[in-house]
Amino acid sequence: MTDIIERVKATIRDVPDFPKEGILFKDITPVLASPALMKGITNHFANRYKDKGVDLVLGMESRGFLFGVPLAMALNASFVPARKPGKLPYHTIGYEYSLEYGTNRLEIHIDAIEQGQRVLVVDDLLATGGTAAATCKLVEQLHGELLACCFVVELGFLSGRDALKGIQVDSLVVY
Amino acid sequence: MTDIIERVKATIRDVPDFPKEGILFKDITPVLASPALMKGITNHFANRYKDKGVDLVLGMESRGFLFGVPLAMALNASFVPARKPGKLPYHTIGYEYSLEYGTNRLEIHIDAIEQGQRVLVVDDLLATGGTAAATCKLVEQLHGELLACCFVVELGFLSGRDALKGIQVDSLVVY
Repeated sequence: MTDIIERVKATIRDVPDFPKEGILFKDITPVLASPALMKGITNHFANRYKDKGVDLVLGMESRGFLFGVPLAMALNASFVPARKPGKLPYHTIGYEYSLEYGTNRLEIHIDAIEQGQRVLVVDDLLATGGTAAATCKLVEQLHGELLACCFVVELGFLSGRDALKGIQVDSLVVY
Repeated sequence: MTDIIERVKATIRDVPDFPKEGILFKDITPVLASPALMKGITNHFANRYKDKGVDLVLGMESRGFLFGVPLAMALNASFVPARKPGKLPYHTIGYEYSLEYGTNRLEIHIDAIEQGQRVLVVDDLLATGGTAAATCKLVEQLHGELLACCFVVELGFLSGRDALKGIQVDSLVVY
């Protein structure tokens, strides 16, 4: 476990001043370029939840798709995409949340979760937690049972866990 | 092989009048909800390319991520995301292409492909082929060797193959 954490840490690329000046962005594309690391990350989370009866993995557009799909396949679970407004073709429910400037909205299909299904939420990054908290609200609206939110990277100094009070947060790499 | 084609066909959901009136949208979310189908699709393409020395799988934001990542992992290849403008943090190259209204642009990291690397392009859907053709141009710009473009669904009546002349097009399900 330590091994995969250290290997991911060593592979993430720091990009200064993205998306704006003063921010040091954690670029995960070198991780995507390594099938060994992708398998290591998938196995790490799959091992932690394989006995928890996960019914579905919910991944947020679009980088949550990158890690959520292989985890769902490894757990023999459904994958459900949470998407930006107007992207999902069937009937949806949505949740609006605040950003630094303006608001954002996340949607899932209304039939994506059945009552009582056990759900893992997966994203690449936990920053301020707004997107993850909105996703958890969608799980609640459809009466799913939320097991945990899993992140490949957590920026601890942004206190995203405060936005996810009462929810199990499971991050691979924490800065 | 026929089996996975028929099972995917039977699982795709037709949503009328999306994204606008008169269009019958092929909704793949029920396919994502089936880990057996996701593994079947991944194995289908992995078997076709396992002896072709694939170095990397290039998937287009955001639905190309859903099928490209597990295929890359199955082929022990790198996954490279092609993204909308301003999303990738490091230095990029881009290609602009025309849509029905206005233009779109797709970008990849400038170090995403090394000269001569063997590339599979993967997306969920081949419609008019604009996005796929732009992605192929990016592979060409970085001097990658394009093996084929793989799609889970092809809308044959939109003649997307015309936009991909000289390129091998490999679709699982064709309407």
